[in-house]
Amino acid sequence: MISPEQSAREQALVELVVASFDDTADPRLKELMRALVRHLHAFVREVRLGEAEWDAAIRFLGEAGRITNAQRQEFILLSDVLGISMQTVAVNNEAYRDATEATVFGPFFTEEAPFIPYGGDLSAAAPGQPCFVEGTVTDVDGSPIAGARLEVWEADEEGLYDVQYGDGRVAGRGYQLSDESGRYRFWGLTPTPYPIPADGPVGSLLAATGRSPMRASHLHFMVSAPGLRTLVTHIFVRGDELLDHDSVFGVKDSLVKDFVVHSASDPTPDGRNLGGRSWADVRFDIVLAPSSL
Amino acid sequence: MISPEQSAREQALVELVVASFDDTADPRLKELMRALVRHLHAFVREVRLGEAEWDAAIRFLGEAGRITNAQRQEFILLSDVLGISMQTVAVNNEAYRDATEATVFGPFFTEEAPFIPYGGDLSAAAPGQPCFVEGTVTDVDGSPIAGARLEVWEADEEGLYDVQYGDGRVAGRGYQLSDESGRYRFWGLTPTPYPIPADGPVGSLLAATGRSPMRASHLHFMVSAPGLRTLVTHIFVRGDELLDHDSVFGVKDSLVKDFVVHSASDPTPDGRNLGGRSWADVRFDIVLAPSSL
Ligand SMILES: [Fe+2]
Ligand SMILES: [Fe+2]
Repeated sequence: MISPEQSAREQALVELVVASFDDTADPRLKELMRALVRHLHAFVREVRLGEAEWDAAIRFLGEAGRITNAQRQEFILLSDVLGISMQTVAVNNEAYRDATEATVFGPFFTEEAPFIPYGGDLSAAAPGQPCFVEGTVTDVDGSPIAGARLEVWEADEEGLYDVQYGDGRVAGRGYQLSDESGRYRFWGLTPTPYPIPADGPVGSLLAATGRSPMRASHLHFMVSAPGLRTLVTHIFVRGDELLDHDSVFGVKDSLVKDFVVHSASDPTPDGRNLGGRSWADVRFDIVLAPSSL
Repeated sequence: MISPEQSAREQALVELVVASFDDTADPRLKELMRALVRHLHAFVREVRLGEAEWDAAIRFLGEAGRITNAQRQEFILLSDVLGISMQTVAVNNEAYRDATEATVFGPFFTEEAPFIPYGGDLSAAAPGQPCFVEGTVTDVDGSPIAGARLEVWEADEEGLYDVQYGDGRVAGRGYQLSDESGRYRFWGLTPTPYPIPADGPVGSLLAATGRSPMRASHLHFMVSAPGLRTLVTHIFVRGDELLDHDSVFGVKDSLVKDFVVHSASDPTPDGRNLGGRSWADVRFDIVLAPSSL
Protein backbone atom coordinates (compact mmCIF):
# COMPACT_ATOMS: atom_id res chain seq x y z
CA MET A 1 0.00 0.00 0.00
CA ILE A 2 2.71 2.49 0.98
CA SER A 3 5.40 2.68 -1.66
CA PRO A 4 9.05 2.16 -0.70
CA GLU A 5 9.73 5.76 -1.79
CA GLN A 6 6.99 7.10 0.47
CA SER A 7 8.16 4.97 3.37
CA ALA A 8 11.75 6.13 2.88
CA ARG A 9 10.61 9.74 2.83
CA GLU A 10 8.73 9.31 6.11
CA GLN A 11 11.65 7.50 7.73
CA ALA A 12 14.06 10.22 6.61
CA LEU A 13 11.88 12.78 8.38
CA VAL A 14 11.97 10.75 11.60
CA GLU A 15 15.74 10.66 11.43
CA LEU A 16 15.98 14.37 10.72
CA VAL A 17 13.89 15.15 13.81
CA VAL A 18 15.79 12.69 15.99
CA ALA A 19 19.08 14.26 14.88
CA SER A 20 17.82 17.73 15.77
CA PHE A 21 18.31 16.76 19.43
CA ASP A 22 22.01 15.92 18.95
CA ASP A 23 23.17 19.06 20.77
CA THR A 24 21.07 18.49 23.90
CA ALA A 25 23.37 19.05 26.89
CA ASP A 26 21.50 16.74 29.28
CA PRO A 27 21.97 13.16 28.05
CA ARG A 28 18.76 11.94 29.67
CA LEU A 29 16.70 14.70 28.06
CA LYS A 30 18.30 13.79 24.73
CA GLU A 31 17.33 10.14 25.20
CA LEU A 32 13.77 11.04 26.18
CA MET A 33 13.19 13.42 23.26
CA ARG A 34 14.64 11.04 20.70
CA ALA A 35 12.52 8.17 21.95
CA LEU A 36 9.38 10.33 22.17
CA VAL A 37 9.86 11.44 18.57
CA ARG A 38 10.34 7.88 17.35
CA HIS A 39 7.23 6.60 19.10
CA LEU A 40 4.97 9.52 18.16
CA HIS A 41 6.05 9.36 14.52
CA ALA A 42 5.49 5.58 14.51
CA PHE A 43 1.95 6.27 15.70
CA VAL A 44 1.26 8.87 12.99
CA ARG A 45 2.68 6.61 10.28
CA GLU A 46 0.95 3.44 11.45
CA VAL A 47 -2.54 4.96 11.63
CA ARG A 48 -1.95 7.27 8.63
CA LEU A 49 -3.19 10.13 10.80
CA GLY A 50 -5.56 12.35 8.83
CA GLU A 51 -5.22 16.12 8.83
CA ALA A 52 -8.70 16.51 10.36
CA GLU A 53 -7.69 13.98 13.03
CA TRP A 54 -4.55 15.99 13.75
CA ASP A 55 -6.77 19.09 14.04
CA ALA A 56 -9.02 17.25 16.49
CA ALA A 57 -6.04 16.22 18.61
CA ILE A 58 -4.77 19.82 18.74
CA ARG A 59 -8.26 21.02 19.73
CA PHE A 60 -8.47 18.31 22.42
CA LEU A 61 -5.18 19.40 23.96
CA GLY A 62 -6.26 23.05 23.86
CA GLU A 63 -9.50 22.22 25.68
CA ALA A 64 -7.60 20.18 28.26
CA GLY A 65 -5.36 23.19 28.78
CA ARG A 66 -8.31 25.55 29.16
CA ILE A 67 -9.94 23.49 31.93
CA THR A 68 -6.69 22.87 33.82
CA ASN A 69 -5.98 25.02 36.88
CA ALA A 70 -4.58 24.60 40.39
CA GLN A 71 -7.60 22.49 41.43
CA ARG A 72 -8.25 20.60 38.20
CA GLN A 73 -5.52 18.78 36.29
CA GLU A 74 -6.96 17.44 33.03
CA PHE A 75 -3.58 16.24 31.74
CA ILE A 76 -3.22 13.96 34.78
CA LEU A 77 -6.71 12.61 34.06
CA LEU A 78 -5.69 12.01 30.45
CA SER A 79 -2.55 10.17 31.54
CA ASP A 80 -4.68 8.17 33.99
CA VAL A 81 -7.37 7.05 31.52
CA LEU A 82 -4.73 6.07 28.95
CA GLY A 83 -3.02 3.92 31.58
CA ILE A 84 0.15 6.01 31.28
CA SER A 85 0.11 6.92 34.97
CA MET A 86 -0.25 3.27 35.93
CA GLN A 87 2.48 2.19 33.50
CA THR A 88 4.80 4.80 35.02
CA VAL A 89 4.00 3.36 38.45
CA ALA A 90 4.73 -0.13 37.13
CA VAL A 91 8.08 0.91 35.68
CA ASN A 92 9.15 2.66 38.90
CA ASN A 93 7.94 0.08 41.38
CA GLU A 94 9.22 -3.22 40.10
CA ALA A 95 8.03 -6.25 41.99
CA TYR A 96 10.39 -7.08 44.86
CA ARG A 97 9.81 -10.25 46.88
CA ASP A 98 6.53 -9.78 48.77
CA ALA A 99 6.66 -5.98 48.98
CA THR A 100 3.18 -4.44 48.75
CA GLU A 101 2.31 -3.35 45.23
CA ALA A 102 1.95 0.30 44.23
CA THR A 103 -0.82 1.98 42.30
CA VAL A 104 -1.69 5.45 41.00
CA PHE A 105 -1.30 8.52 43.18
CA GLY A 106 -4.36 10.37 41.89
CA PRO A 107 -4.98 14.11 42.11
CA PHE A 108 -6.53 14.36 45.60
CA PHE A 109 -3.60 14.10 48.02
CA THR A 110 -2.85 17.25 50.02
CA GLU A 111 0.10 18.10 52.24
CA GLU A 112 -2.08 19.50 55.01
CA ALA A 113 -3.70 16.40 56.50
CA PRO A 114 -4.14 16.27 60.30
CA PHE A 115 -2.32 13.86 62.62
CA ILE A 116 -4.57 10.96 63.68
CA PRO A 117 -3.52 9.18 66.87
CA TYR A 118 -3.47 5.35 67.01
CA GLY A 119 -7.12 4.26 66.88
CA GLY A 120 -8.33 7.77 66.02
CA ASP A 121 -10.92 8.75 63.44
CA LEU A 122 -9.96 10.52 60.19
CA SER A 123 -13.44 10.74 58.70
CA ALA A 124 -14.20 13.99 60.54
CA ALA A 125 -17.70 14.99 59.41
CA ALA A 126 -17.54 13.16 56.09
CA PRO A 127 -20.65 11.05 55.41
CA GLY A 128 -20.29 7.29 55.11
CA GLN A 129 -20.14 3.98 56.92
CA PRO A 130 -17.47 3.85 59.65
CA CYS A 131 -14.63 1.49 58.79
CA PHE A 132 -12.01 0.18 61.20
CA VAL A 133 -8.65 -0.17 59.44
CA GLU A 134 -5.60 -1.82 60.97
CA GLY A 135 -2.41 -3.55 60.03
CA THR A 136 1.34 -3.55 60.33
CA VAL A 137 4.25 -2.03 58.46
CA THR A 138 7.21 -4.37 58.00
CA ASP A 139 10.17 -4.76 55.70
CA VAL A 140 10.46 -7.73 53.33
CA ASP A 141 12.15 -9.77 56.06
CA GLY A 142 9.12 -9.30 58.29
CA SER A 143 10.79 -6.91 60.73
CA PRO A 144 8.33 -4.33 62.04
CA ILE A 145 8.97 -0.73 61.07
CA ALA A 146 8.35 1.70 63.90
CA GLY A 147 7.59 5.32 63.09
CA ALA A 148 6.61 4.73 59.47
CA ARG A 149 4.48 7.62 58.26
CA LEU A 150 1.15 6.56 56.80
CA GLU A 151 -0.81 9.15 54.84
CA VAL A 152 -4.40 8.08 54.19
CA TRP A 153 -7.08 9.79 52.09
CA GLU A 154 -10.44 8.83 50.65
CA ALA A 155 -13.69 10.06 49.13
CA ASP A 156 -16.88 10.21 51.18
CA GLU A 157 -20.04 8.30 50.30
CA GLU A 158 -21.12 11.18 48.02
CA GLY A 159 -18.12 10.24 45.89
CA LEU A 160 -16.27 13.46 46.71
CA TYR A 161 -12.96 14.26 48.36
CA ASP A 162 -12.97 17.14 50.86
CA VAL A 163 -11.06 19.37 48.43
CA GLN A 164 -13.77 18.94 45.80
CA TYR A 165 -16.33 20.78 47.95
CA GLY A 166 -14.26 23.94 47.61
CA ASP A 167 -15.24 25.18 51.10
CA GLY A 168 -11.92 24.50 52.84
CA ARG A 169 -13.14 21.49 54.82
CA VAL A 170 -10.61 18.80 55.80
CA ALA A 171 -12.21 15.36 56.10
CA GLY A 172 -11.46 11.81 55.04
CA ARG A 173 -7.71 12.32 55.34
CA GLY A 174 -4.97 12.19 57.94
CA TYR A 175 -1.59 10.76 58.82
CA GLN A 176 -0.40 8.37 61.48
CA LEU A 177 2.95 6.97 62.62
CA SER A 178 3.29 3.22 63.17
CA ASP A 179 3.98 2.20 66.76
CA GLU A 180 7.05 0.38 68.10
CA SER A 181 5.62 -2.92 66.84
CA GLY A 182 4.96 -1.45 63.39
CA ARG A 183 1.20 -1.34 64.00
CA TYR A 184 -1.25 1.29 62.82
CA ARG A 185 -4.98 1.57 63.44
CA PHE A 186 -7.63 4.16 62.58
CA TRP A 187 -11.30 4.66 61.83
CA GLY A 188 -12.16 5.89 58.36
CA LEU A 189 -15.04 5.29 55.95
CA THR A 190 -15.86 2.17 53.97
CA PRO A 191 -14.75 3.13 50.43
CA THR A 192 -17.43 3.80 47.84
CA PRO A 193 -17.10 4.27 44.06
CA TYR A 194 -16.81 7.70 42.46
CA PRO A 195 -16.36 9.09 38.95
CA ILE A 196 -13.25 10.94 37.89
CA PRO A 197 -14.20 14.50 36.82
CA ALA A 198 -16.03 13.90 33.54
CA ASP A 199 -17.19 17.38 32.49
CA GLY A 200 -14.04 18.13 30.43
CA PRO A 201 -12.46 16.72 27.26
CA VAL A 202 -11.29 13.55 29.04
CA GLY A 203 -14.90 12.89 30.06
CA SER A 204 -15.95 13.42 26.43
CA LEU A 205 -13.28 10.97 25.31
CA LEU A 206 -14.55 8.35 27.77
CA ALA A 207 -18.12 8.90 26.53
CA ALA A 208 -17.07 8.63 22.87
CA THR A 209 -15.24 5.38 23.57
CA GLY A 210 -18.01 3.78 25.62
CA ARG A 211 -15.99 3.88 28.82
CA SER A 212 -17.20 4.64 32.33
CA PRO A 213 -15.53 7.36 34.38
CA MET A 214 -16.07 5.33 37.59
CA ARG A 215 -13.24 4.31 39.81
CA ALA A 216 -13.47 1.12 41.84
CA SER A 217 -13.99 1.89 45.55
CA HIS A 218 -10.64 2.46 47.26
CA LEU A 219 -8.74 3.92 50.17
CA HIS A 220 -5.44 5.70 49.41
CA PHE A 221 -2.22 5.07 51.33
CA MET A 222 1.22 6.62 51.05
CA VAL A 223 3.71 4.95 53.40
CA SER A 224 7.26 6.10 53.97
CA ALA A 225 10.11 5.25 56.30
CA PRO A 226 13.86 5.92 56.17
CA GLY A 227 15.80 3.46 53.99
CA LEU A 228 12.64 2.01 52.48
CA ARG A 229 10.95 2.62 49.14
CA THR A 230 8.00 4.97 49.57
CA LEU A 231 4.81 3.13 48.74
CA VAL A 232 1.90 4.91 47.06
CA THR A 233 -1.05 2.56 46.83
CA HIS A 234 -4.75 1.92 47.43
CA ILE A 235 -6.72 -0.90 48.91
CA PHE A 236 -9.84 -2.02 47.03
CA VAL A 237 -13.03 -3.74 48.20
CA ARG A 238 -13.46 -7.41 47.33
CA GLY A 239 -16.78 -7.90 45.53
CA ASP A 240 -16.90 -4.37 44.06
CA GLU A 241 -18.29 -4.82 40.56
CA LEU A 242 -16.02 -2.02 39.28
CA LEU A 243 -12.82 -3.97 40.04
CA ASP A 244 -12.65 -5.21 36.45
CA HIS A 245 -13.11 -1.85 34.78
CA ASP A 246 -11.56 0.79 36.95
CA SER A 247 -11.30 3.93 34.80
CA VAL A 248 -7.61 4.43 35.59
CA PHE A 249 -6.47 0.77 35.64
CA GLY A 250 -5.36 1.03 39.26
CA VAL A 251 -6.59 -2.34 40.53
CA LYS A 252 -4.15 -5.13 41.37
CA ASP A 253 -5.33 -8.45 42.76
CA SER A 254 -3.01 -8.21 45.75
CA LEU A 255 -4.60 -4.90 46.75
CA VAL A 256 -8.18 -6.21 46.87
CA LYS A 257 -9.06 -6.69 50.53
CA ASP A 258 -11.91 -8.19 52.53
CA PHE A 259 -13.99 -5.43 54.00
CA VAL A 260 -16.22 -7.23 56.50
CA VAL A 261 -19.50 -5.49 57.21
CA HIS A 262 -20.91 -5.69 60.73
CA SER A 263 -24.38 -4.84 61.95
CA ALA A 264 -24.87 -2.01 64.38
CA SER A 265 -25.28 -4.52 67.20
CA ASP A 266 -21.80 -6.03 66.72
CA PRO A 267 -19.36 -4.62 69.27
CA THR A 268 -16.53 -2.57 67.71
CA PRO A 269 -12.94 -3.83 68.13
CA ASP A 270 -11.96 -0.88 70.30
CA GLY A 271 -15.29 -0.35 72.03
CA ARG A 272 -16.03 2.82 70.09
CA ASN A 273 -19.70 3.82 70.17
CA LEU A 274 -20.90 4.44 66.62
CA GLY A 275 -24.33 5.73 67.60
CA GLY A 276 -26.18 2.70 66.26
CA ARG A 277 -24.65 2.60 62.81
CA SER A 278 -23.42 -0.48 60.94
CA TRP A 279 -19.68 -0.56 60.36
CA ALA A 280 -16.95 -2.48 58.53
CA ASP A 281 -13.41 -3.57 59.19
CA VAL A 282 -10.41 -4.45 57.07
CA ARG A 283 -6.84 -5.54 57.66
CA PHE A 284 -4.00 -4.29 55.46
CA ASP A 285 -0.48 -5.42 56.28
CA ILE A 286 2.06 -3.31 54.45
CA VAL A 287 5.47 -4.57 53.33
CA LEU A 288 8.00 -1.97 52.18
CA ALA A 289 10.82 -2.74 49.75
CA PRO A 290 14.31 -1.36 50.40
CA SER A 291 14.79 2.05 48.82
CA SER A 292 17.95 1.06 46.95
CA LEU A 293 16.90 -1.59 44.48
CA MET B 1 17.74 -6.06 33.33
CA ILE B 2 13.94 -6.23 33.30
CA SER B 3 12.72 -9.57 34.57
CA PRO B 4 10.28 -11.64 32.51
CA GLU B 5 7.72 -11.24 35.32
CA GLN B 6 8.06 -7.46 35.28
CA SER B 7 7.84 -7.35 31.50
CA ALA B 8 4.74 -9.57 31.53
CA ARG B 9 3.12 -7.30 34.12
CA GLU B 10 3.78 -4.22 31.97
CA GLN B 11 2.50 -5.94 28.83
CA ALA B 12 -0.64 -7.08 30.62
CA LEU B 13 -1.36 -3.47 31.54
CA VAL B 14 -0.99 -2.40 27.89
CA GLU B 15 -3.47 -5.06 26.87
CA LEU B 16 -5.92 -4.08 29.60
CA VAL B 17 -5.87 -0.45 28.43
CA VAL B 18 -6.18 -1.42 24.75
CA ALA B 19 -9.17 -3.63 25.59
CA SER B 20 -10.87 -0.77 27.44
CA PHE B 21 -11.62 0.75 24.01
CA ASP B 22 -13.47 -2.37 22.79
CA ASP B 23 -16.88 -0.70 23.04
CA THR B 24 -15.97 2.39 21.01
CA ALA B 25 -18.77 2.94 18.50
CA ASP B 26 -16.63 4.69 15.86
CA PRO B 27 -14.22 2.10 14.43
CA ARG B 28 -11.66 4.71 13.41
CA LEU B 29 -11.62 6.27 16.89
CA LYS B 30 -11.15 2.77 18.32
CA GLU B 31 -8.21 2.17 16.01
CA LEU B 32 -6.63 5.52 16.86
CA MET B 33 -6.97 5.12 20.63
CA ARG B 34 -5.64 1.57 20.64
CA ALA B 35 -2.63 2.55 18.57
CA LEU B 36 -1.97 5.67 20.63
CA VAL B 37 -2.00 3.60 23.82
CA ARG B 38 0.39 1.03 22.39
CA HIS B 39 2.88 3.64 21.21
CA LEU B 40 2.76 5.79 24.35
CA HIS B 41 3.18 2.76 26.61
CA ALA B 42 6.07 1.55 24.45
CA PHE B 43 7.72 4.93 25.03
CA VAL B 44 7.23 4.81 28.82
CA ARG B 45 8.54 1.25 29.00
CA GLU B 46 11.51 1.78 26.69
CA VAL B 47 12.85 4.85 28.49
CA ARG B 48 11.75 3.59 31.94
CA LEU B 49 10.09 6.95 32.48
CA GLY B 50 10.80 8.26 35.98
CA GLU B 51 8.05 9.62 38.19
CA ALA B 52 9.75 13.04 38.32
CA GLU B 53 9.97 12.93 34.51
CA TRP B 54 6.26 12.15 34.31
CA ASP B 55 5.64 15.12 36.64
CA ALA B 56 7.71 17.34 34.36
CA ALA B 57 5.72 16.22 31.32
CA ILE B 58 2.42 16.99 33.07
CA ARG B 59 3.76 20.42 34.08
CA PHE B 60 4.92 21.07 30.50
CA LEU B 61 1.48 20.29 29.09
CA GLY B 62 -0.18 22.49 31.73
CA GLU B 63 2.09 25.41 30.81
CA ALA B 64 1.39 24.88 27.13
CA GLY B 65 -2.31 24.98 27.96
CA ARG B 66 -1.95 28.19 29.97
CA ILE B 67 -0.25 30.10 27.14
CA THR B 68 -2.63 28.84 24.44
CA ASN B 69 -5.46 31.14 23.31
CA ALA B 70 -7.14 32.20 20.08
CA GLN B 71 -3.96 33.96 18.88
CA ARG B 72 -1.32 31.60 20.28
CA GLN B 73 -1.44 27.84 19.78
CA GLU B 74 1.39 26.23 21.75
CA PHE B 75 0.25 22.67 20.98
CA ILE B 76 0.63 23.35 17.25
CA LEU B 77 4.13 24.66 17.94
CA LEU B 78 4.88 21.52 19.94
CA SER B 79 3.63 19.33 17.10
CA ASP B 80 5.71 21.41 14.69
CA VAL B 81 9.02 21.21 16.57
CA LEU B 82 8.62 17.45 17.09
CA GLY B 83 8.10 17.02 13.35
CA ILE B 84 4.61 15.61 13.96
CA SER B 85 2.97 18.29 11.82
CA MET B 86 5.36 17.58 8.97
CA GLN B 87 4.92 13.81 9.32
CA THR B 88 1.14 14.30 9.13
CA VAL B 89 1.65 16.33 5.96
CA ALA B 90 3.86 13.56 4.56
CA VAL B 91 1.27 10.87 5.30
CA ASN B 92 -1.55 12.88 3.71
CA ASN B 93 0.28 14.11 0.64
CA GLU B 94 1.97 11.08 -0.80
CA ALA B 95 4.25 11.75 -3.72
CA TYR B 96 2.36 11.60 -7.02
CA ARG B 97 4.29 11.88 -10.30
CA ASP B 98 5.66 15.44 -10.44
CA ALA B 99 2.98 17.08 -8.28
CA THR B 100 4.41 19.91 -6.18
CA GLU B 101 5.32 18.79 -2.67
CA ALA B 102 3.42 19.96 0.40
CA THR B 103 4.77 21.35 3.65
CA VAL B 104 3.42 22.60 6.99
CA PHE B 105 0.48 24.96 7.15
CA GLY B 106 1.73 27.00 10.12
CA PRO B 107 -0.41 29.13 12.43
CA PHE B 108 -0.53 32.42 10.45
CA PHE B 109 -3.08 31.82 7.68
CA THR B 110 -6.27 33.86 7.93
CA GLU B 111 -9.53 33.64 5.98
CA GLU B 112 -9.75 37.37 5.43
CA ALA B 113 -7.02 38.03 2.88
CA PRO B 114 -7.74 40.61 0.13
CA PHE B 115 -8.05 39.80 -3.57
CA ILE B 116 -4.90 40.74 -5.49
CA PRO B 117 -5.36 41.23 -9.24
CA TYR B 118 -2.89 39.67 -11.71
CA GLY B 119 0.38 41.57 -11.24
CA GLY B 120 -0.89 43.35 -8.11
CA ASP B 121 1.01 43.91 -4.85
CA LEU B 122 0.11 42.02 -1.66
CA SER B 123 2.80 43.51 0.56
CA ALA B 124 0.62 46.52 1.42
CA ALA B 125 2.68 48.61 3.86
CA ALA B 126 4.76 45.66 5.15
CA PRO B 127 8.49 46.46 5.23
CA GLY B 128 10.85 44.45 3.03
CA GLN B 129 12.43 44.07 -0.38
CA PRO B 130 9.88 43.89 -3.22
CA CYS B 131 9.76 40.48 -4.85
CA PHE B 132 8.12 39.66 -8.18
CA VAL B 133 6.57 36.17 -8.06
CA GLU B 134 5.11 34.36 -11.05
CA GLY B 135 4.36 30.94 -12.37
CA THR B 136 1.70 28.60 -13.62
CA VAL B 137 -0.75 26.16 -12.15
CA THR B 138 -1.09 22.90 -14.09
CA ASP B 139 -2.19 19.34 -13.47
CA VAL B 140 0.27 16.46 -13.65
CA ASP B 141 -0.33 16.14 -17.39
CA GLY B 142 0.79 19.72 -17.91
CA SER B 143 -2.67 21.10 -18.68
CA PRO B 144 -3.08 24.65 -17.38
CA ILE B 145 -5.63 25.13 -14.60
CA ALA B 146 -7.67 28.31 -15.04
CA GLY B 147 -9.31 29.85 -11.97
CA ALA B 148 -7.17 28.03 -9.40
CA ARG B 149 -7.29 29.94 -6.13
CA LEU B 150 -3.87 30.83 -4.76
CA GLU B 151 -3.70 32.04 -1.18
CA VAL B 152 -0.32 33.58 -0.33
CA TRP B 153 0.99 34.82 3.02
CA GLU B 154 4.37 35.78 4.45
CA ALA B 155 6.20 37.54 7.26
CA ASP B 156 7.70 41.00 6.75
CA GLU B 157 11.41 41.77 7.11
CA GLU B 158 10.89 42.31 10.87
CA GLY B 159 10.08 38.59 10.99
CA LEU B 160 6.42 39.22 11.84
CA TYR B 161 3.13 38.36 10.18
CA ASP B 162 0.51 41.11 10.13
CA VAL B 163 -1.59 39.29 12.75
CA GLN B 164 1.33 39.31 15.18
CA TYR B 165 1.23 43.11 15.45
CA GLY B 166 -2.17 42.87 17.08
CA ASP B 167 -3.36 46.16 15.54
CA GLY B 168 -5.68 44.71 12.90
CA ARG B 169 -3.44 45.47 9.93
CA VAL B 170 -3.66 43.25 6.85
CA ALA B 171 -0.35 43.05 4.96
CA GLY B 172 1.79 40.40 3.34
CA ARG B 173 -1.20 38.29 2.36
CA GLY B 174 -3.75 37.99 -0.40
CA TYR B 175 -5.38 35.67 -2.88
CA GLN B 176 -5.39 35.49 -6.64
CA LEU B 177 -7.08 33.37 -9.30
CA SER B 178 -4.99 31.89 -12.10
CA ASP B 179 -5.82 33.22 -15.57
CA GLU B 180 -7.13 31.21 -18.56
CA SER B 181 -3.55 30.02 -19.25
CA GLY B 182 -3.08 28.95 -15.62
CA ARG B 183 -0.76 31.88 -14.95
CA TYR B 184 -0.46 33.89 -11.74
CA ARG B 185 1.72 36.90 -10.97
CA PHE B 186 2.05 39.24 -8.01
CA TRP B 187 4.45 41.45 -6.10
CA GLY B 188 5.26 40.42 -2.53
CA LEU B 189 8.33 40.61 -0.32
CA THR B 190 11.56 38.63 -0.53
CA PRO B 191 11.18 36.13 2.35
CA THR B 192 13.34 36.61 5.44
CA PRO B 193 13.89 34.27 8.40
CA TYR B 194 11.88 34.51 11.61
CA PRO B 195 11.67 32.64 14.92
CA ILE B 196 8.62 30.69 15.97
CA PRO B 197 7.22 32.17 19.22
CA ALA B 198 9.84 31.12 21.78
CA ASP B 199 8.62 32.69 25.02
CA GLY B 200 6.58 29.64 26.10
CA PRO B 201 7.33 26.06 27.11
CA VAL B 202 8.11 25.04 23.52
CA GLY B 203 10.74 27.80 23.40
CA SER B 204 12.16 26.49 26.69
CA LEU B 205 12.29 22.98 25.24
CA LEU B 206 14.18 24.24 22.19
CA ALA B 207 16.63 26.08 24.44
CA ALA B 208 17.15 23.02 26.67
CA THR B 209 17.85 20.86 23.63
CA GLY B 210 20.23 23.28 21.93
CA ARG B 211 17.85 23.97 19.06
CA SER B 212 17.15 27.24 17.30
CA PRO B 213 13.58 28.54 16.98
CA MET B 214 14.38 30.02 13.53
CA ARG B 215 12.47 29.08 10.46
CA ALA B 216 14.15 29.13 7.06
CA SER B 217 12.92 32.08 4.96
CA HIS B 218 9.75 31.15 3.09
CA LEU B 219 6.61 32.28 1.30
CA HIS B 220 3.37 30.35 2.02
CA PHE B 221 1.02 29.11 -0.70
CA MET B 222 -2.29 27.28 -0.53
CA VAL B 223 -3.57 26.36 -3.99
CA SER B 224 -6.95 24.81 -4.69
CA ALA B 225 -9.00 23.96 -7.75
CA PRO B 226 -12.00 21.67 -8.33
CA GLY B 227 -11.05 18.00 -8.75
CA LEU B 228 -7.47 18.58 -7.68
CA ARG B 229 -5.74 17.92 -4.34
CA THR B 230 -5.42 21.16 -2.38
CA LEU B 231 -1.75 22.01 -1.98
CA VAL B 232 -0.44 23.67 1.17
CA THR B 233 3.21 24.51 0.74
CA HIS B 234 6.01 27.08 0.95
CA ILE B 235 8.81 28.12 -1.29
CA PHE B 236 12.23 28.59 0.28
CA VAL B 237 15.22 30.72 -0.72
CA ARG B 238 18.22 28.92 -2.20
CA GLY B 239 21.34 29.84 -0.26
CA ASP B 240 19.52 30.50 3.03
CA GLU B 241 21.79 29.08 5.73
CA LEU B 242 18.75 27.96 7.73
CA LEU B 243 17.62 25.47 5.08
CA ASP B 244 19.39 22.63 6.88
CA HIS B 245 17.96 23.32 10.32
CA ASP B 246 14.49 24.73 9.92
CA SER B 247 12.84 24.53 13.36
CA VAL B 248 9.73 22.77 12.05
CA PHE B 249 11.39 20.51 9.43
CA GLY B 250 9.38 22.10 6.61
CA VAL B 251 12.12 22.28 3.95
CA LYS B 252 12.07 20.00 0.92
CA ASP B 253 14.66 20.25 -1.84
CA SER B 254 12.03 20.62 -4.54
CA LEU B 255 10.64 23.70 -2.77
CA VAL B 256 13.94 25.61 -2.65
CA LYS B 257 13.79 28.25 -5.38
CA ASP B 258 16.17 30.73 -6.95
CA PHE B 259 15.33 34.20 -5.75
CA VAL B 260 17.33 36.47 -8.07
CA VAL B 261 18.21 39.85 -6.58
CA HIS B 262 18.27 42.87 -8.90
CA SER B 263 19.74 46.29 -8.28
CA ALA B 264 17.47 49.31 -8.20
CA SER B 265 18.59 50.25 -11.69
CA ASP B 266 17.38 46.99 -13.27
CA PRO B 267 14.00 47.49 -14.95
CA THR B 268 11.16 45.50 -13.39
CA PRO B 269 9.40 42.85 -15.51
CA ASP B 270 6.12 44.75 -15.56
CA GLY B 271 7.56 48.26 -15.53
CA ARG B 272 6.50 48.92 -11.94
CA ASN B 273 8.32 51.85 -10.35
CA LEU B 274 9.77 50.73 -6.99
CA GLY B 275 11.01 54.17 -5.95
CA GLY B 276 14.68 53.33 -6.27
CA ARG B 277 14.71 50.13 -4.26
CA SER B 278 16.45 46.87 -5.13
CA TRP B 279 14.13 43.94 -5.83
CA ALA B 280 14.08 40.20 -6.45
CA ASP B 281 12.19 37.77 -8.60
CA VAL B 282 11.31 34.11 -8.43
CA ARG B 283 9.43 31.61 -10.55
CA PHE B 284 7.28 28.88 -8.99
CA ASP B 285 5.39 26.55 -11.29
CA ILE B 286 2.77 24.62 -9.36
CA VAL B 287 1.58 21.13 -10.29
CA LEU B 288 -1.54 19.83 -8.57
CA ALA B 289 -2.26 16.12 -8.07
CA PRO B 290 -5.78 14.78 -8.67
CA SER B 291 -7.93 14.91 -5.55
CA SER B 292 -8.87 11.24 -5.68
CA LEU B 293 -5.64 9.32 -5.21
FE1 LIG C 1 -9.07 8.19 44.75
FE1 LIG D 1 5.54 30.98 8.03
